[in-house]
Amino acid sequence: MKLVVLKFGGTSVADVPQIKKIALKVKEVVNQGYKVIIVVSAMSGVTNNLIDLVKTTSESLSYPEYDVVLSTGEQVTSALLASALNNINIKARSWLGWQVPIISDKSHAKALIEEIKTDNLLEFFKKNQVAVISGFQGISNENRITTLGRGGSDTSAVAIAAAFSAERCDIYTDVDGVYTTDPRIVKSAKKLNLITYEEMLELASQGAKVLQTRSVALAMKYNVKLRVLSSFEDLPGTSIIKEEKNMEKTEISGIAHSLNEAKITLSGVPDQPGQAAEIFGALAKHSINVDMIVQSSSINQEATDITFTIPETDMIIAESTIKKIQKKICFKKFITDTNVVKISVVGNGMRTQSGIAKTMFETLANNQINIHVISTSEIKISVLISSDYYELAMRSLHSAFGLDV
Amino acid sequence: MKLVVLKFGGTSVADVPQIKKIALKVKEVVNQGYKVIIVVSAMSGVTNNLIDLVKTTSESLSYPEYDVVLSTGEQVTSALLASALNNINIKARSWLGWQVPIISDKSHAKALIEEIKTDNLLEFFKKNQVAVISGFQGISNENRITTLGRGGSDTSAVAIAAAFSAERCDIYTDVDGVYTTDPRIVKSAKKLNLITYEEMLELASQGAKVLQTRSVALAMKYNVKLRVLSSFEDLPGTSIIKEEKNMEKTEISGIAHSLNEAKITLSGVPDQPGQAAEIFGALAKHSINVDMIVQSSSINQEATDITFTIPETDMIIAESTIKKIQKKICFKKFITDTNVVKISVVGNGMRTQSGIAKTMFETLANNQINIHVISTSEIKISVLISSDYYELAMRSLHSAFGLDV
Repeated sequence: MKLVVLKFGGTSVADVPQIKKIALKVKEVVNQGYKVIIVVSAMSGVTNNLIDLVKTTSESLSYPEYDVVLSTGEQVTSALLASALNNINIKARSWLGWQVPIISDKSHAKALIEEIKTDNLLEFFKKNQVAVISGFQGISNENRITTLGRGGSDTSAVAIAAAFSAERCDIYTDVDGVYTTDPRIVKSAKKLNLITYEEMLELASQGAKVLQTRSVALAMKYNVKLRVLSSFEDLPGTSIIKEEKNMEKTEISGIAHSLNEAKITLSGVPDQPGQAAEIFGALAKHSINVDMIVQSSSINQEATDITFTIPETDMIIAESTIKKIQKKICFKKFITDTNVVKISVVGNGMRTQSGIAKTMFETLANNQINIHVISTSEIKISVLISSDYYELAMRSLHSAFGLDV
Repeated sequence: MKLVVLKFGGTSVADVPQIKKIALKVKEVVNQGYKVIIVVSAMSGVTNNLIDLVKTTSESLSYPEYDVVLSTGEQVTSALLASALNNINIKARSWLGWQVPIISDKSHAKALIEEIKTDNLLEFFKKNQVAVISGFQGISNENRITTLGRGGSDTSAVAIAAAFSAERCDIYTDVDGVYTTDPRIVKSAKKLNLITYEEMLELASQGAKVLQTRSVALAMKYNVKLRVLSSFEDLPGTSIIKEEKNMEKTEISGIAHSLNEAKITLSGVPDQPGQAAEIFGALAKHSINVDMIVQSSSINQEATDITFTIPETDMIIAESTIKKIQKKICFKKFITDTNVVKISVVGNGMRTQSGIAKTMFETLANNQINIHVISTSEIKISVLISSDYYELAMRSLHSAFGLDV
């Protein structure tokens, strides 16, 4: 079956006129002879409004109810697009998460997709109709609506493309592709025609907001051909693919930044085995992703400092979590800093080329930018710096790595 | 099981502060030792906004998609109320139509409830929690969301009360009970403490907007004890009950009016058998409820005039439906009048007392109000008059039947 998955999110489903434009784009693909699955997110601003609404009902969120409220955003978009398609004689119907069904675990507001049942849709495709699936949502084995967390519609689209062995998965968004860095900050940023899953993964998780990390990881796992395209312009976009031998080898494919960072330091932690496990175990229980971790070497063999970063949005819950275990851990001081940004240099080329770290640190030093924390992976180096310098850091690194054309 | 159903609609779920107030009211009932099922409608204005939204996507509505969009209104309210209840330590969860499930037929936008499965909720009540059910919605045997038509939340509440053999069904709304007539039009209108199902049915179907007709008919069929109460004030409200011998016998319990009326006259219809069946059959196919019907006696034994009323909101579809069968019916003229109002006098006492019609027609005549069409039932007399006179008609009838205290 020749099938494609098209995902429309953000401002590309801003309002009804925009949804009608998308319907025309879908018509083109249908006329090319494809079976088409559309995945949509909520209309612009709707999700934030719904979050505000549900937050006013209670001091502590009921996450299952939060999911019931939030899922209506995508529910409405899918029905509106199906209706707009019917209006131009493309037979279509909406499919909600529980109708497909898209089965997830029961971690409400942050659910993981476990399985996508294909029987209902395969039967439906016999009618030669377009399926418009509400992204971002699933159903738990308790028969309750779940949501996949912010940006989860990308993950829905890729998971669906994998389940139906789609020829490709096109992510339509408000940018026309993946850039070497954020073009709003660095004017000389260039669009990439090709990027590997791994590079994209690092760029996505480091804060390039084009695609959600989970969706890229999923695409890599199931080898889903992914494209990022503009909803507004007819441009080729960026293809995200497996690494191939004949790919142009560039040292560095991009510079990413993440503003949603907070640094926590626990000073005077007694130097005993199991302390780190205790701290990060408590945070993990609340689904707080700890990113960079540095433990300073114990000076007097009695106490040590542990520094780590978390999403700034998790700061309140992280603080209360850690203060609850203060007696157990016996640390002396709890120090936080939210005026920090993470800058990452990403590139498949790092595997074979040395000197990247040297160039990076030198460039920052030449600009008098102090580095708080460093972390590295096979294809990425990240540094935590003061927020005051992040634009300067990005511009100078973009230039230093020869990305300014 | 000591169980009550409480339904909150209209302005009683206007916004989050109002929803929080309702949560406190529910808490009182829970503390009285009842199992509680709440049925909610959409927040004020939400349904109309959603209708406007879906209408802009297409020239001809896709009713199944219309239902997907509209059902989100009640979905959101039920989750917000469940959240607000959890916030004051009353354990609660939302139940969507498809989760209960409330099984309906597949006539989208006007679906009829076929069955309410009770197993899931009976299991749920073992946890001593409150169920907050989204009103107005069901699920078809095609696994698609349906809606029950405007005001359908009352019907949901009564059907649920019947299915669970509830001790009573309390309808909380923005008025404090059922009145002898519309207090906004007739200042001397009085609140009724008791009214029979049949009287309420006539009042509801004749345009008293307190309760939806279907919900009253259902309550009568299953003998559900119904109360109409104010969400805002702690007043006794009106109980709707079976007729009892010791009930205070009043001639007339109320005067109702309906503005959503249109009159259609087909003149010069050949006087042959089967013509009426043809006309009303075609309208029934489009689910248009024809109300009053008058066929003038054939003067020359060849042609006749057929006059009937329909909801004004169905006028466009009625016109196109009838014009399609013009060749078959061979009527000469199609005449419409939407500047009409139906006024009804309702009372159980009519069964045993004569002279009601005389008083009604005399009162209207004394006020120079011309009657277009008359229809009667055992406990009701309705007249169609020009819209210009409806307030005058209501006030003078209210007074003539001794309802002004």
